[in-house]
Amino acid sequence: MASTLQIKSIEDVIIRSLNDDELKEFNRIHYGRIDHCNISLTESSVRAASANNFEIAAFDFPALIEETRPPRIVRVGVIQHSIASSTSKPIKEQRESIFNKVSKLIDAAATEGVNILCLQEAWSMPFAFCTREKTPWCEFAENVNTGPSTNFLIALAKKYGMVIISPILERDELHGDLIWNTAVVINEKGKVIGSHRKNHIPRVGDFNESTYYYEGNTGHPVFETKFGKVAINICYGRHHPLNWLMFGLNGAEIVFNPSATVAGLSEHLWGIEARNAAIANSYFTCAINRVGTEVFPNEFTSGDGKPAHNNFGHFYGSSYVAAPDGTRTPGLSRTMDGLLIAQIDLNMCRQIKDKWGFAMTQRLDMYAKSLSEYVGGKEAQLIKDK
Amino acid sequence: MASTLQIKSIEDVIIRSLNDDELKEFNRIHYGRIDHCNISLTESSVRAASANNFEIAAFDFPALIEETRPPRIVRVGVIQHSIASSTSKPIKEQRESIFNKVSKLIDAAATEGVNILCLQEAWSMPFAFCTREKTPWCEFAENVNTGPSTNFLIALAKKYGMVIISPILERDELHGDLIWNTAVVINEKGKVIGSHRKNHIPRVGDFNESTYYYEGNTGHPVFETKFGKVAINICYGRHHPLNWLMFGLNGAEIVFNPSATVAGLSEHLWGIEARNAAIANSYFTCAINRVGTEVFPNEFTSGDGKPAHNNFGHFYGSSYVAAPDGTRTPGLSRTMDGLLIAQIDLNMCRQIKDKWGFAMTQRLDMYAKSLSEYVGGKEAQLIKDK
Repeated sequence: MASTLQIKSIEDVIIRSLNDDELKEFNRIHYGRIDHCNISLTESSVRAASANNFEIAAFDFPALIEETRPPRIVRVGVIQHSIASSTSKPIKEQRESIFNKVSKLIDAAATEGVNILCLQEAWSMPFAFCTREKTPWCEFAENVNTGPSTNFLIALAKKYGMVIISPILERDELHGDLIWNTAVVINEKGKVIGSHRKNHIPRVGDFNESTYYYEGNTGHPVFETKFGKVAINICYGRHHPLNWLMFGLNGAEIVFNPSATVAGLSEHLWGIEARNAAIANSYFTCAINRVGTEVFPNEFTSGDGKPAHNNFGHFYGSSYVAAPDGTRTPGLSRTMDGLLIAQIDLNMCRQIKDKWGFAMTQRLDMYAKSLSEYVGGKEAQLIKDK
Repeated sequence: MASTLQIKSIEDVIIRSLNDDELKEFNRIHYGRIDHCNISLTESSVRAASANNFEIAAFDFPALIEETRPPRIVRVGVIQHSIASSTSKPIKEQRESIFNKVSKLIDAAATEGVNILCLQEAWSMPFAFCTREKTPWCEFAENVNTGPSTNFLIALAKKYGMVIISPILERDELHGDLIWNTAVVINEKGKVIGSHRKNHIPRVGDFNESTYYYEGNTGHPVFETKFGKVAINICYGRHHPLNWLMFGLNGAEIVFNPSATVAGLSEHLWGIEARNAAIANSYFTCAINRVGTEVFPNEFTSGDGKPAHNNFGHFYGSSYVAAPDGTRTPGLSRTMDGLLIAQIDLNMCRQIKDKWGFAMTQRLDMYAKSLSEYVGGKEAQLIKDK
């Protein structure tokens, strides 16, 4: 595992190693544009980042000027962070230490004029689902409307006039005290306008989440906020093209993918899936992954024949934003907390639909029929070589 | 456009520029494995490649050893090539010159023990659909069973005991003389076992294909050959996740994506889409693109406000193979003809399904219902912020 921590990011290696002409070609082919379109940051944010040991970066995604619609420019922010205290500490202390850390990143986002902010999956707790232990981890679950994470963010959303998406472990006290993996959408006035429960639950590696919660029952809601129509595809849902598709069909312009995933399992898939979704659905996607290594008090096994151990592996960060035209930002660091900002013109979504025509040519009627027949048990279309 | 031709490939730049440790990390994160698992080639193939100015490369994709199933190792080959004579020459001459060129690549594939070979989209003709002219290009259309391309390949399939997939412009003489964009599947005994017509037709840039042929009416067939279950997602269909999905549901283990696409339009999408499909559907994908710049006798416009011109732009090759586990081969050159061989163990498909569980967790019943409702006009799930 040591080698997985040697580099800060692919970007960092590439920029140091390639000459100018090669770098242009690499950027054009890999990121979709020669220039990353960096946006300059305010001095105070840069100072805050340095003082609090987080990375901050901002990139522009301009669209064409239209005659009949004004630009619809929105600043989107995503935050990746490690936990802030030992997993052996009392729950309230663990949570407060994360609040304290994240508040500094949100302050910086506000300074940079971020309109819509999204945090990582289960951001206010360690990703303890590897343990399969119910105690004390289930106690992190909280009420969508009145829990400590929501209260903490409501204050900031109101203070900064910012829409904040808060992926938490939900406790549904009104319906059997069930636990869900949920994203809460708080509007710029500090009001919860709705929530969405993770549609696809992993059973891979140490991701024993199905021990704690079930597949979501909230469909594919798109939230029409003051700043744009947003949806949330939580973590493992990024492996499911149909999940991305339904958010697009329901009108999403930006789909956030708050995640928690580790090196050795998914790092080579990370740059592919959320970006493919942006291309296929002509919307912006924001892939967010936590960082750091989380160590737990009791050892656990991973179902892979290896000895019991206490840590989940390295969450590799690398959060990025991808645009409908297939371009993307560089990733944040693999090892540091970070705030990534994208200034996007939402007009690009429709412009790319007009250019590429994926929505027009997707023949949904055919697939609705094919899928229904498949689910109904119809024989597969297999041509045998007799 | 000049800068798009400066580098042979991203791979070429990276290998020259990074030190050993950096290269390992780049490979791990970008390709999914530190070592590309090169397979050594026979001397005669290497000589043939050098003599005929094409690239040849071979990579291994081993799977785990199972107790109850033997390995199912298959060698897959894909060929990318430029046209071989001026587009002003008589049709038969153009076609024969391509046959002559491609036969050398197929000979090399046979020497290397390739079992299943796929050629690029409309491989036996220039990609003349940019012109919107029907004459003489429609004359390249040929009968699936008896046309010159099929006859040419039947002989080679029989000679080498190789399954060959031949994407051509089809003339359906039995049904109104319609033209289709079709892939013909020829078995290892030289028998046509079926064909598939391109499901999604582009209307983007110079891809004026809908001027010539309509969306395919052959569904999503999977061909059960001696060497494995294969399907063909032709060109623009790679932008449609549902197209990939249906081939997977019908049992495909390898899906070929014979394409023709140019720099400036799609090069930054190329590494994303077929690879995402391999991941999402737990099968192998083979992305094949032609190379070179094709110049046509009469000028044409591109609907982009720019002056009329005679060339389609640069087809950037870069063919590659991606595995169910998300690893991939380096790409072939952006500028040269090439033969890419992947030795794959088909057992990996099921192994990855067991590991990642995407098929198990994909909730097809929910999506069959959602898509049917959407197609039926049901209101989108839009949460307004009242």
